[in-house]
Amino acid sequence: MQGPLVVGSVALDTIETRNGTRHEILGGSASYFSAAASFLGPVSIVAVVGEDFPAQHTAFLQHLGTNTDGLVTQAGRTFRWHGRYSDDFNKRTSLDTQLNVFAGFNPELPSEHRQAKLLFLGNIDPVLQYRVVEQAQAAKLVGMDTMNFWISGSREPLLRVLKRVDFLLVNDEEARMLSGEHNLVLAARAIQRLGPKNVIVKRGDAGSLLFHDQQIFAAPALPLTDVIDPTGAGDSFAGGFMGFLGRTWSGGELDGMTVRRAMICGSTMASFCCEDF
Amino acid sequence: MQGPLVVGSVALDTIETRNGTRHEILGGSASYFSAAASFLGPVSIVAVVGEDFPAQHTAFLQHLGTNTDGLVTQAGRTFRWHGRYSDDFNKRTSLDTQLNVFAGFNPELPSEHRQAKLLFLGNIDPVLQYRVVEQAQAAKLVGMDTMNFWISGSREPLLRVLKRVDFLLVNDEEARMLSGEHNLVLAARAIQRLGPKNVIVKRGDAGSLLFHDQQIFAAPALPLTDVIDPTGAGDSFAGGFMGFLGRTWSGGELDGMTVRRAMICGSTMASFCCEDF
Repeated sequence: MQGPLVVGSVALDTIETRNGTRHEILGGSASYFSAAASFLGPVSIVAVVGEDFPAQHTAFLQHLGTNTDGLVTQAGRTFRWHGRYSDDFNKRTSLDTQLNVFAGFNPELPSEHRQAKLLFLGNIDPVLQYRVVEQAQAAKLVGMDTMNFWISGSREPLLRVLKRVDFLLVNDEEARMLSGEHNLVLAARAIQRLGPKNVIVKRGDAGSLLFHDQQIFAAPALPLTDVIDPTGAGDSFAGGFMGFLGRTWSGGELDGMTVRRAMICGSTMASFCCEDF
Repeated sequence: MQGPLVVGSVALDTIETRNGTRHEILGGSASYFSAAASFLGPVSIVAVVGEDFPAQHTAFLQHLGTNTDGLVTQAGRTFRWHGRYSDDFNKRTSLDTQLNVFAGFNPELPSEHRQAKLLFLGNIDPVLQYRVVEQAQAAKLVGMDTMNFWISGSREPLLRVLKRVDFLLVNDEEARMLSGEHNLVLAARAIQRLGPKNVIVKRGDAGSLLFHDQQIFAAPALPLTDVIDPTGAGDSFAGGFMGFLGRTWSGGELDGMTVRRAMICGSTMASFCCEDF
């Protein structure tokens, strides 16, 4: 059992919340994804870090069971992000973003990873996401995340990669922006016409919705008594979701019940993620 | 089988939405509640209308199976409300409220209704809600709704009636205002300490949460392709919820599965309610 392969970012995050501030902690979509997926089974990561990336973070990911053969170190500094949350966590302000080595990221899958059956394209340039899909010829199920920056600024490359995707995971605002529809049901149907047969709309503490054909499944979010830091919740959802599929799916016809259980698993991992920095 | 008794308002609503405007259509918490509850079984209403109340509305409620023996006609005009929704339905502006005969509403339960096992206190002055509870000596289960107006302006009477209530149904903002807690889990726990063992937080299209002891159950909302008019959705939820209990609950120990099914039923009725004026 190989588990899912994730291609995305590994970063050093500085995060300010009403609960305190943390400096240069392990972050990035691929880190959160693999940490969550590792609860379910093996997971592999393809990402880039700079020479300053602390060895303890790599060791941490390996300790969780992440295959880091595809974690490349390049000359320069690691991707850094600095954000601040409003007291109710409804607003996030990016104070500083330094792409550093991530600016030149051009993912090259190690040969072992070209056999991955499950592929997740973290939130990176859709041009790169497409290159990854092209390399992952054995992938039977492709999941993908994106964000407003690419939806508004790189629409053509995004539409191209969407045609290759089985599950698109986006939040409600991204679904609206991508589709031009305010209503989430209509938005999901419009996205389905762009390629992904399955659209998962993540709605934070309002849970998530799976749209498959004309069917809709709603997975509630676990109500938390206290949110400490929601950074990475969406990636943790994706990691729990794909990790569950990696653990239970044989590769044949994917039945609805398995997908629904995978969503509950994603929702659970997202809730764990919010409970601490 | 007697079904639930609801005490609340019957009104003539003028509603403006992006989908059009309707003038003086049947509205009010008791109307919506009984219309929803009537899908499950019998329901009785105690409310007041003016001499101008169209007979067709009373006939409509009766046609649905509502016992209108407690619908009193008084000299004067019927309660009128005029509201306008923002295009995304997230904002509702009250343009005009004429209490009319509702200003002097002093609910007196007909003797047959004093035997009701299930009582729902619609959103009216908590002083009146308390008087109703005092009259409904046979009630084994009391549900209640309230709103920001009473939470901020009539706190003492509200706290008094809350001690007599088994299920409080409020929206998220009302739960926060009543408890002083922003986090919904903490808010519900604080409200439980005020009396109601069960708190149901209605969150619109984000579904509803039931808090019972330390347990939480999440009922999703049916994702709608188009919301035409959300007026009365909360009352329809309450009607579906109490109507289901009226249909299935024998009066003994109320088990969790019955309550959860009742919530799904409430959620279903709320979704029907939004699909048209």
